[in-house]
Amino acid sequence: MTTVPRVTTDMTSPLLARRLANAGAASILFYNQPLELVRGQGAWLEAADGTLYLDAYNNVPSVGHCHPKVVAAIAEQTAKLAIHSRYLHEIVESYLERLKASFPSDLANIVLCCTASEANDLAMRIAMRATGRRGFIITENAYHGSTLATIDISPALWKRGSPLAYVRLVPPPSRRAYGDDITGGFTAAVAQAAAALEADGLGLAAFICDSIFSSDGVLTDPPGFLGPVVETVRAAGGLYIADEVQSGFGRTGAGMWGFQRHGVQPDMVTMGKAMGNGYPVAGLAVRPELLSQLCEDIVYFNTYAGNPVAAAAGLAVLDVIEQEKLIDNAAHQGAVLLAGIRDIVAGNPLISEVRGAGFFIGVEFAGVGAPARVKAIVEGLRQRRVLIGTTGRYGESLKIRPPLCFSDKEVAIFLEAFAEALAEVTAAPDGPGTGPVHD
Amino acid sequence: MTTVPRVTTDMTSPLLARRLANAGAASILFYNQPLELVRGQGAWLEAADGTLYLDAYNNVPSVGHCHPKVVAAIAEQTAKLAIHSRYLHEIVESYLERLKASFPSDLANIVLCCTASEANDLAMRIAMRATGRRGFIITENAYHGSTLATIDISPALWKRGSPLAYVRLVPPPSRRAYGDDITGGFTAAVAQAAAALEADGLGLAAFICDSIFSSDGVLTDPPGFLGPVVETVRAAGGLYIADEVQSGFGRTGAGMWGFQRHGVQPDMVTMGKAMGNGYPVAGLAVRPELLSQLCEDIVYFNTYAGNPVAAAAGLAVLDVIEQEKLIDNAAHQGAVLLAGIRDIVAGNPLISEVRGAGFFIGVEFAGVGAPARVKAIVEGLRQRRVLIGTTGRYGESLKIRPPLCFSDKEVAIFLEAFAEALAEVTAAPDGPGTGPVHD
Repeated sequence: MTTVPRVTTDMTSPLLARRLANAGAASILFYNQPLELVRGQGAWLEAADGTLYLDAYNNVPSVGHCHPKVVAAIAEQTAKLAIHSRYLHEIVESYLERLKASFPSDLANIVLCCTASEANDLAMRIAMRATGRRGFIITENAYHGSTLATIDISPALWKRGSPLAYVRLVPPPSRRAYGDDITGGFTAAVAQAAAALEADGLGLAAFICDSIFSSDGVLTDPPGFLGPVVETVRAAGGLYIADEVQSGFGRTGAGMWGFQRHGVQPDMVTMGKAMGNGYPVAGLAVRPELLSQLCEDIVYFNTYAGNPVAAAAGLAVLDVIEQEKLIDNAAHQGAVLLAGIRDIVAGNPLISEVRGAGFFIGVEFAGVGAPARVKAIVEGLRQRRVLIGTTGRYGESLKIRPPLCFSDKEVAIFLEAFAEALAEVTAAPDGPGTGPVHD
Repeated sequence: MTTVPRVTTDMTSPLLARRLANAGAASILFYNQPLELVRGQGAWLEAADGTLYLDAYNNVPSVGHCHPKVVAAIAEQTAKLAIHSRYLHEIVESYLERLKASFPSDLANIVLCCTASEANDLAMRIAMRATGRRGFIITENAYHGSTLATIDISPALWKRGSPLAYVRLVPPPSRRAYGDDITGGFTAAVAQAAAALEADGLGLAAFICDSIFSSDGVLTDPPGFLGPVVETVRAAGGLYIADEVQSGFGRTGAGMWGFQRHGVQPDMVTMGKAMGNGYPVAGLAVRPELLSQLCEDIVYFNTYAGNPVAAAAGLAVLDVIEQEKLIDNAAHQGAVLLAGIRDIVAGNPLISEVRGAGFFIGVEFAGVGAPARVKAIVEGLRQRRVLIGTTGRYGESLKIRPPLCFSDKEVAIFLEAFAEALAEVTAAPDGPGTGPVHD
């Protein structure tokens, strides 16, 4: 998210000019020449000029763009009834029960929202209410949402300024930050931040993290490193909120939720993005007593959330994940993809580390030229009709995150294009050009 | 919103029991015996037992439940492409341009969100950034959203506690609060609150109000009363945010937006609910320089917002409003409905005032028995297969708010049922029973 400045080039596209006129400073676009897309199917996107792009980036259409079962579920329910949840509807309860079955049994309540920003915002309020404390610990380039409160805990969105007193940033669980002892170093950093919050009279309400640390660079290893961190958080009186917006719904190939790779049990889980494969739906799984405490103070209601169309979309996504064995596919093809990338970069001095779990891979570049090289790779892949993104605090890593239906053929196409794009950047005498590159 | 406690009765319904088990303390339901609905068409809703209900309450499916043109637009675009707005898509720009054409020309940027909570939350941040001030003035039973920040300005949701220092409550623009001089009284109250914020060193960032004061009881008259209020707000250095979530998209019958009835020009307009007729879409219209200031500090991006399906749904809604002349219908049939209600309640000592604009009508009951009588009317109408709601700080008013397609036949059905339900409550010797009644 650090790497999404607004486009200032290519004012020659009429559609781009319209966007800039319509959305102004909130125009956030990918690429030097933003893509105009018109159709999606599986892992493929079609541009207005007829070009097909292989999508190895977008994580919302996680079971594949325009999956026919999800499309049909949305169309059918939209034609029958779309209404808020102050009346009862069977499909909503069926969906909540399917979701609940995927969580540890003590997370027995689900609150549906429309966006993960809302889910994380609600989790913050619940954590402060339940603990009577105010402080939050997050990672240095965390991204948890775009509401007033969640922007406070999303340094990836900050262009300037410092964290507010109630928010403490810790370096993310990376080799760069902690060397070989990621678990020990990260746990100690969280303990220190908790102590600082306590000393300042704020106390620790919650530690919240994306279970795969997507915006921090995709930080996956060693699995289990969150175990001692969560113990430390609980010892300090805080709650642990697992943000599964990026890592949930089978993305890591190791179960439905990213926290499962770490063998930990959250107090709350927030989810979104892949949840409706494009239909806006998000949610919070929570221990009932925490929710009850909040609801002593306020009525929580969300007009669009929990409508039967959202539930129909969400149920179809869960069905497709099961029926098409997409978690297995993410594990198996993700491993092939990761191994292929590792083969290609082996011995390349530009690259410092390749990390991944399932279909979520980060490729970190070394040195001060890293962000420019990363951008050049992204543009180079786009020229080869493959879409990926960037991540990390300085945009120093590639973010590779195809839909869970990515096939062996698509893995092969990706690897061929990646090898070419990397070779081109590696061969450039002084790295890529210094012109503005946006993604 | 004060009148939406969770249901504590009728645990005999298996579906209700499932809801309470799944959503816990966040189970917000209407009626003693919550309705299970399965289908909607136009102004009609079908329950699971086959009963048809006339919907004179729900304002999200504003052009009619499951309007075939909106359903088709959603189905078609969902099958083609549903993706975030970091790529370009023609339909998104067309939608933004159609929306912009409905606003004063200086509100030249539109930011799409998924929920009106997000839109109001964003408006708060923009107002604080632009003014360098912190304070907000709201009405006593305002409702502006369910994020951490917007709950602060939504006393309708508070079960206990007091406003934070940066939030000042003023009595709503009602005869009950200000007698015959609603304009003068309300303006003076806002001026006093602004002065208090200034004296406390917070200053006034913005005055925000629902242009029809829905949760304060539906306060419509005299049209124009917001004029001097907005002047006062500007004189105090604050911005005026028009919350059009309730009053927008033709609801008042006097143009597309509720603020038009008052001849005022907002600095920002927030919208939602009716915007997608059930598809989750919301937005903010804003002066570009205000948005630019915010975007110097942060990246604002919203994953699901501005996707082509949201735009397709929104465009279809605008088309239907135009093609079916729904604003005229709201004006004309709304006036018939209002006159009919006034005839029925004429001389009834239980009722203190009937207010309305277009298809948004409030019927206020007098005295300490008002909330119980209002609830009894709502239940009595439900028994007669007509759905309405309650509003006002104490739940002292009926909220009557049919879809904009409500026909003369449906107005007649409503009035007949309303007359019966009112007669029943009026005839009750000591008012309705005192058992728990929830809506």
